[in-house]
Amino acid sequence: MTTTERPATERLVIIGGDAAGMSAASQARRMKGPDELEIVAFERGHFSSFSACGIPYWVSGDVGERDELIARTPEEHRKRSIDLRMRTEVTEIDVAGRRVRSRDLETGEDAWTGWDKLVIATGARPVRPALPGIDAPGVHGVQTLDDGQALLDTLDRAAGRRAVVVGAGYIGVEMAEALLKHGYEVTVVNRGEQPMATLDPDMGRLVHEAMSGMGITTVSGTAVTAILTGDDGRARAVATDDAEYPADVVVLGLGVEPETTLARAAGLPLGRHGGLLTDLAMRVRGHDDIWAGGDCVEVLDLVSGRERHIALGTHANKHGQIIGANAGGGYGTFPGVVGTAVSKVCDLEIARTGLREKDAREVGLQYVTATIESTSRAGYFPGAAPMTVKMLAERRTGRLLGVQIVGREGAAKRVDIAAVALTAGLTVEQVTALDLGYAPPFSPVWDPVQVAARKATAAVRAGG
Amino acid sequence: MTTTERPATERLVIIGGDAAGMSAASQARRMKGPDELEIVAFERGHFSSFSACGIPYWVSGDVGERDELIARTPEEHRKRSIDLRMRTEVTEIDVAGRRVRSRDLETGEDAWTGWDKLVIATGARPVRPALPGIDAPGVHGVQTLDDGQALLDTLDRAAGRRAVVVGAGYIGVEMAEALLKHGYEVTVVNRGEQPMATLDPDMGRLVHEAMSGMGITTVSGTAVTAILTGDDGRARAVATDDAEYPADVVVLGLGVEPETTLARAAGLPLGRHGGLLTDLAMRVRGHDDIWAGGDCVEVLDLVSGRERHIALGTHANKHGQIIGANAGGGYGTFPGVVGTAVSKVCDLEIARTGLREKDAREVGLQYVTATIESTSRAGYFPGAAPMTVKMLAERRTGRLLGVQIVGREGAAKRVDIAAVALTAGLTVEQVTALDLGYAPPFSPVWDPVQVAARKATAAVRAGG
Repeated sequence: MTTTERPATERLVIIGGDAAGMSAASQARRMKGPDELEIVAFERGHFSSFSACGIPYWVSGDVGERDELIARTPEEHRKRSIDLRMRTEVTEIDVAGRRVRSRDLETGEDAWTGWDKLVIATGARPVRPALPGIDAPGVHGVQTLDDGQALLDTLDRAAGRRAVVVGAGYIGVEMAEALLKHGYEVTVVNRGEQPMATLDPDMGRLVHEAMSGMGITTVSGTAVTAILTGDDGRARAVATDDAEYPADVVVLGLGVEPETTLARAAGLPLGRHGGLLTDLAMRVRGHDDIWAGGDCVEVLDLVSGRERHIALGTHANKHGQIIGANAGGGYGTFPGVVGTAVSKVCDLEIARTGLREKDAREVGLQYVTATIESTSRAGYFPGAAPMTVKMLAERRTGRLLGVQIVGREGAAKRVDIAAVALTAGLTVEQVTALDLGYAPPFSPVWDPVQVAARKATAAVRAGG
Repeated sequence: MTTTERPATERLVIIGGDAAGMSAASQARRMKGPDELEIVAFERGHFSSFSACGIPYWVSGDVGERDELIARTPEEHRKRSIDLRMRTEVTEIDVAGRRVRSRDLETGEDAWTGWDKLVIATGARPVRPALPGIDAPGVHGVQTLDDGQALLDTLDRAAGRRAVVVGAGYIGVEMAEALLKHGYEVTVVNRGEQPMATLDPDMGRLVHEAMSGMGITTVSGTAVTAILTGDDGRARAVATDDAEYPADVVVLGLGVEPETTLARAAGLPLGRHGGLLTDLAMRVRGHDDIWAGGDCVEVLDLVSGRERHIALGTHANKHGQIIGANAGGGYGTFPGVVGTAVSKVCDLEIARTGLREKDAREVGLQYVTATIESTSRAGYFPGAAPMTVKMLAERRTGRLLGVQIVGREGAAKRVDIAAVALTAGLTVEQVTALDLGYAPPFSPVWDPVQVAARKATAAVRAGG
């Protein structure tokens, strides 16, 4: 085993060569040149800085080439004097000794590398329940580019055209669309009451209905008990308590959990979702020279005041940028999230921000709800597409608590209005007065979010 | 002359049967039934509650039928016990005597009507400079449905296919699109440095370039001196100081000014733009029982702290709703605007909110600017369309002051993010941390508004 001692200049070591890690590296490099700061990054995979969120669209064929999902190659990072070591897995963090142990996955060689500053950006791993048959050929995750390529290979070769997607969250519904585009007959099996458990069930029902209209079968309230295999050992069906769903391909879309095995072994503080806990500057709590960001950390939900785990590239990029600024001697903070997410299944757009009803109840907030139908453009304008907006407001104070939108073109990004309003702590009555962009091709004279806010305002007044 | 005395129940009289006036009527009616409140509304035109903003799209053919622009007919209002008197023009407001004089435009008969509460919603009139030839046949405004019909008739009959639009504001550029769709060769003549004077000139230049690409000729920095007429008395060309532009049809798109002739004669308070001045409850200042709203009032700009005149249906509807609540014994206020506006020319989307550079200078605000290029979706996602975002931030404090966006599909409504942030008084650094909807079909991993905010944050830090 070799040991790379710390050089005379400071050394920043980064574990994880994806969005958070490499954003941190890039920002730190902008702050300090190589004569002041050495940057070493370890990535166990074959790719750096790729868009995991883009994989469903590569599988679907919307994005033609895998490499389009790569924001920056290892070579590009190295040109900026970032020593990015690919296929090299960090196997231990020695906090007291300020060093990490790594293994070159090609040669099997171990090495210690010292650090002055450390960034943990180990990401998330897909939830993969210990079901019989889960490792059979024909069962696919969609977390990495290698996963995506393996799935595409299977889709080309599969004997039949029946696909089962396990899980009906973002990845599940996006993969349902992708499989549909490959000509598959798609069944989504889902433990929750409705697809998209990040929505309230009444809004999830709208997603269910729309997916039915696209020819996607959604089976809800059912847990998968096994993946059944054929004589050739390949997956042939997905079994639940009460049924079997034949499958030529099975896609796992059960979400992800923080990859914090290393951090846990090193005794670093983890939250109730298993993610690293940081301060506002993204420093691991209690550790001045260790930062963490991206899918491996928990973030503060500004509406509920609770920590949450949200794996999303946009947060990872922000974390990385802030970590890089701080590690590079600058200053930045990440105040928290409000839980905004957008997605689509074919032409159905789905968006949410803030609290669902159950979230509000969980933290003791009493609320009123308002649900309205409106359109993306003036009702008389061609292409005006329907949308349903549900809004939660705190009882008595009228503070906006959450918004969910299900609709067609032009629906999803309207959630940003609510996301900013939530961040600012506006009441639903204040939302009714917002000066939003209006012209017939872009909005009805009252934006749908404001139509919901008017109804919510009335509900607050009536609510006692 | 007949006199309708005030009845035993209270009477609310409304001058103007369009967005503000009829929203007020409807909301007041929701608050109080006909046994408690009589509502009389006067409208001098042929139509009630129509979308003036929709006229360019009716002329263009995007909207098939005139009547689609009518949100509610006189009969529909009357069914809700609103006594809407069409083709009846109010000719005098007697404030001390609490009555209005009106003239039935069909019979010529005058009458006095007493009121307990009065709403002034007289709207705006198009700017129509006293140029030679301005009243010639072939010269068209586009303020009313009658205007729209007259223009459509001319477009069908015109001898040639050359159109000149005078003015390059919202109406001007929207009409350029409409005329292009009718197969006209379009020239837009414009006094300003660039089209869209509601943008800074550097952003207006992008509009100019895009319009050129569509085949629309834009002549800027040129004032029209006359409309030249032919032997038949019809408009044949538009003359400026240094050129003549042949025209088979001329469209005036010079914007509007508050229609406050009656209010001025009655001694009610007007601001420096000629609009009525109200308090936060939309009461005319100094008059407890008189409200005013819509295109005839000035509104507070929350960013500059100055009064502005903005004729926009979305404000008129909000004003009406608030006036109706207050006149009906409820409570509501209109806090002000931030100056948000969106528009399009063919597939070019244009948006702005907050202050331009000249607005900031005018009120003594020092600022930095940041202009960036980004895309509407992840760069690798099909349909990712380019957009340019310009952002102004206050020097030192970093407070967001304004945003301008010029781009293609998906650009304009992003301005809402900035509109809410301006209302909440966020800094550009706070904008960088907002939790906005991200998925590859909807946004790059950093929303374009946040890319601009990052650059503006850096500019604030560097700015001293």
